[in-house]
Amino acid sequence: MGKWLTAKHAAEQVRAEVAKEAAHWRAEGIVPKVAVLLVEGDPASAYYAETKRKIAGKLGIEFECRTMPPDAREEQLLDIVKAWSRDASVHGIMLELPLPGHISASDVAAAIDPLKDVDGVTPANKLAVMTGEPGLYPATPQSCIRLLQAYGYTLEGKNVTLVGRGQTVGLPLFHMLQREQATVTVCHSRTIDLKRHVERADIVIAAVGHAGLITADMLRPASVVVDAGINEREDGSITGDVSPEAFEAAEAVSPVPGGVGTLTTALLFENAMKAIRLQTQAAKKETIL
Amino acid sequence: MGKWLTAKHAAEQVRAEVAKEAAHWRAEGIVPKVAVLLVEGDPASAYYAETKRKIAGKLGIEFECRTMPPDAREEQLLDIVKAWSRDASVHGIMLELPLPGHISASDVAAAIDPLKDVDGVTPANKLAVMTGEPGLYPATPQSCIRLLQAYGYTLEGKNVTLVGRGQTVGLPLFHMLQREQATVTVCHSRTIDLKRHVERADIVIAAVGHAGLITADMLRPASVVVDAGINEREDGSITGDVSPEAFEAAEAVSPVPGGVGTLTTALLFENAMKAIRLQTQAAKKETIL
Repeated sequence: MGKWLTAKHAAEQVRAEVAKEAAHWRAEGIVPKVAVLLVEGDPASAYYAETKRKIAGKLGIEFECRTMPPDAREEQLLDIVKAWSRDASVHGIMLELPLPGHISASDVAAAIDPLKDVDGVTPANKLAVMTGEPGLYPATPQSCIRLLQAYGYTLEGKNVTLVGRGQTVGLPLFHMLQREQATVTVCHSRTIDLKRHVERADIVIAAVGHAGLITADMLRPASVVVDAGINEREDGSITGDVSPEAFEAAEAVSPVPGGVGTLTTALLFENAMKAIRLQTQAAKKETIL
Repeated sequence: MGKWLTAKHAAEQVRAEVAKEAAHWRAEGIVPKVAVLLVEGDPASAYYAETKRKIAGKLGIEFECRTMPPDAREEQLLDIVKAWSRDASVHGIMLELPLPGHISASDVAAAIDPLKDVDGVTPANKLAVMTGEPGLYPATPQSCIRLLQAYGYTLEGKNVTLVGRGQTVGLPLFHMLQREQATVTVCHSRTIDLKRHVERADIVIAAVGHAGLITADMLRPASVVVDAGINEREDGSITGDVSPEAFEAAEAVSPVPGGVGTLTTALLFENAMKAIRLQTQAAKKETIL
């Protein structure tokens, strides 16, 4: 019954555009470069950093991954991020999250130059998402919307049930969805009767981190489901928030892996290109003044 | 059938607490003072500023209203706000909105010291509302929640339909409601079938600025309705977003005037007391360092 909203084609298109723009910057004498800060100890983080390195290589983007030991002090991470923020040869800065418990991820994030903040984690870009001002928006919420659009699903006037209200995906996504003119209901762990809220939605987006939360009985044959959950199984493989059998009950479901996450990685590099444009404009302004 | 959720009693309680705290600060040698910036030309703004002056007088709070001509330059307004931000004898700063079209209200707001920002209009406090960090939150959204609580209505697990998504009321209120563990649906001008979303809610909050938008046929006998709309009638009187006959159809409706707005004014002064506490703490910290 259902169809899979795979991200492969959309991600390829984004990467092709990014490679083109990266080549353009190289021709202008600017070598695009992104830097990732990784603290050892979380195997998933190490895997994501490695994935980014491979993609950067294919896109003609320089890549630096600084790996720190699990007992690194916050001050050390702040120093690295601040140095990258000052370094004109670095255009994009990413933190692999989660950071160890003794470090404040939000303090480290706040040290990133907002113009290099390609995953939208600085206070300035968080506020921009909320108010709708221009900025670098976080990649995962963008990916949810772009994946729907890639399959021709529009959001204006649609009833969207968003399950999850985290700072990284849920809340910024709420703001982006309502600016697309969707009517959004935000559900969470204290929601009474999740089934009723999911059932009545035209589009369901799950971003909780709870495997199998969205089940087939919550869906209608017209339901369109985007799965932004990433959960690790005991065997190390990953699965989303949507139960596997839900696929049969709905019109369309995005797979995990191969859905939101795949497009997210491509969009981080799209943001890196946007970051270069913003930095170039800012530099021009400074020269004039 | 319905009952009115009047704010008189709740506002009196808040004002009594504020008067007590203001007296405490005076005894400590700190004379609480709030300052309002008013640009001439909007009769409602002049009225609100005058209301604040009267209440401040009753609460033992010094009050300064700086009135500027309609053609005042943005630079002049910025200078006033910056001077108040530096002036240790001023504890709370408010802008009467709207400002004339040639002035950027958000630029003037951004010049307010966040610790004196008693209506939560600075970027720092807007972000705090979104992330749930401590700060000075805007008074009107606070008023909507406090008015419900004053009548014993809890929010946890409730389905709330919020009509309106403005930067001043709707969006901060969304964040505050979901932190109270409500399941919130945000409706707006592009929402299809507003009636259905209003009808199914336990609690409806209207904050659009469209007289008579919420009608009796949208409500159930169990509906609880908070009206945060303020609309001027041709005769100069004000009315809310909820149609007068809706009162009969619902369990409870907050009146306009005499509801959200009445409690909002009291909460601005509650915020001013909180502002003094924040400023005192910050000053102590500075002395230690």
